[in-house]
Amino acid sequence: MERKIVVVGSIALDSIETPYGKVEEVLGGSAIHFSVAASFFVPVGIVGVIGDDFPPKYLKLLSQRQKIDLSGVKRAEGKTFRWRGYYKGDMNIAYTVETQLNVFENFIPEIPKEYYSSGCIFLANIDPELQYKVLSEVRSNNNNIWLTACDTMNFWIEHKLEKVKHIFSCVDIVIINEGEIRQIAEEANLLRAAKKTFVLCPGLKSVVVKRGEYGVVVFTRDSIFCLPGYLLEKVKDPTGAGDTFAGGFLGSLVQFGKINEKNLRRAAVYGSVLASFNVEDFGLRRLLRLSKDDIEKRYNEFKFLTHFC
Amino acid sequence: MERKIVVVGSIALDSIETPYGKVEEVLGGSAIHFSVAASFFVPVGIVGVIGDDFPPKYLKLLSQRQKIDLSGVKRAEGKTFRWRGYYKGDMNIAYTVETQLNVFENFIPEIPKEYYSSGCIFLANIDPELQYKVLSEVRSNNNNIWLTACDTMNFWIEHKLEKVKHIFSCVDIVIINEGEIRQIAEEANLLRAAKKTFVLCPGLKSVVVKRGEYGVVVFTRDSIFCLPGYLLEKVKDPTGAGDTFAGGFLGSLVQFGKINEKNLRRAAVYGSVLASFNVEDFGLRRLLRLSKDDIEKRYNEFKFLTHFC
Repeated sequence: MERKIVVVGSIALDSIETPYGKVEEVLGGSAIHFSVAASFFVPVGIVGVIGDDFPPKYLKLLSQRQKIDLSGVKRAEGKTFRWRGYYKGDMNIAYTVETQLNVFENFIPEIPKEYYSSGCIFLANIDPELQYKVLSEVRSNNNNIWLTACDTMNFWIEHKLEKVKHIFSCVDIVIINEGEIRQIAEEANLLRAAKKTFVLCPGLKSVVVKRGEYGVVVFTRDSIFCLPGYLLEKVKDPTGAGDTFAGGFLGSLVQFGKINEKNLRRAAVYGSVLASFNVEDFGLRRLLRLSKDDIEKRYNEFKFLTHFC
Repeated sequence: MERKIVVVGSIALDSIETPYGKVEEVLGGSAIHFSVAASFFVPVGIVGVIGDDFPPKYLKLLSQRQKIDLSGVKRAEGKTFRWRGYYKGDMNIAYTVETQLNVFENFIPEIPKEYYSSGCIFLANIDPELQYKVLSEVRSNNNNIWLTACDTMNFWIEHKLEKVKHIFSCVDIVIINEGEIRQIAEEANLLRAAKKTFVLCPGLKSVVVKRGEYGVVVFTRDSIFCLPGYLLEKVKDPTGAGDTFAGGFLGSLVQFGKINEKNLRRAAVYGSVLASFNVEDFGLRRLLRLSKDDIEKRYNEFKFLTHFC
């Protein structure tokens, strides 16, 4: 069983302000947060695009991480995707000041041959039609794929709902925000929204719902696992927490090598562990100085946080 | 060790409308929801007031529950406390249409001699000065008290913050909503709000934070326990869920007979079990047809919902 993941998503330069400080043009984007988190468990190949202004220090930083493969990162003429935003108060809402799509606007993902043997693909939040194109391409070139997953966002739900539902029907797992699943299922009650999603998407094995500081819920067709969020005294920067969760979740699940109840639960904890570290500092700072020991220690803290007899 | 609880709070006639129906003047109020829940574990004595219009069927209903003692329920001239409200959409917010304090407006709680030997007192949401008066009276007449707890609400936090902080300093456990603890501590971050509350209230052993559908967090001075909410397809009526939680929590804790980490965790689960049943139907309907087996079954479901290896 192939234990490598391909991730298709954005590579960004983020400018972020929170009550704890501000940073300018730090490395971010869904594919980056995902792959740094997942690379603690298995190798990851990124499919994405950068502009000709992309800082060499960030390329160096990524290429130094042995488990991250950059063969699928294309350099295009123009500027790199940029996002500027801020958080205030309870840090649950990102206020966007500016989004510059730049080279990301005409991004057509292409899977390099080096990635064909991968066992898993994660389609981060991009146009659902592109997600479908990539998935079809991977499936036709790769017989090793045993785990497929995707994310989406409110923009696509509002503008391309049928395409979102279609890609959801084609993957094993969707990893999605609580508000978004309610929007897709047109159902305020979370349990009913999840059940309706399984009906709408017959092929789907699991719906993983991210609830921000309140944790996650992992639904399968016959079980529910609820994990509360890790409580932190300082959430310095929530940017990328969702993609970091997805990276820790799929990274560990691919390392376990099989989709079953026990592994889905453990993967949700690893995803939450990674996400809880991610928000402790700006951008990738905390994850870049994280050790496997830190991860195992916090995994056990999650046990103490949640278990009773 | 005395295993009986005294609860001081409201006895109300509630008129409630939700997307699932409406009811007129059903039995409610903090002391009622609390005592019905707690009486699944230990005997409870109610201290409260009713008007001369209080329906005899409700008195009969309460007196039929062997573990509920009504010696402390005073009948006053005038009308019983009434609340009218509704819920919509995600059912997390109660919209008040009308509150008629009636006989509850001049309620001076008095503890009957029959209750003097109780081991625990719960001061439900009433004026913090009255809470202090009752606590002092109980303490001076009763050497058996080993567990004291209280609740409050935003009205008292806004109008009598110092008195709220004072009563919090005088009890072992406060059971409070997430928004309220943030308000008291003037701190948006929950963990910091809890720590600040422990500093403000030196005698306090535990802060139990109710987060509605997201469950509860039990803080002690050196530990945190997080329990997610039970997911239900239909929340028919959330009225009284917080007091029902408090009843299940303190009822089981008093039955265990000791405040320690293990028992606080188990008590939080029993509180959540009772609250999850309470919202399945209007008023007290679901709790009145609940069995000990139902409770144990859902307790085990909470284990399956939350545990991982």
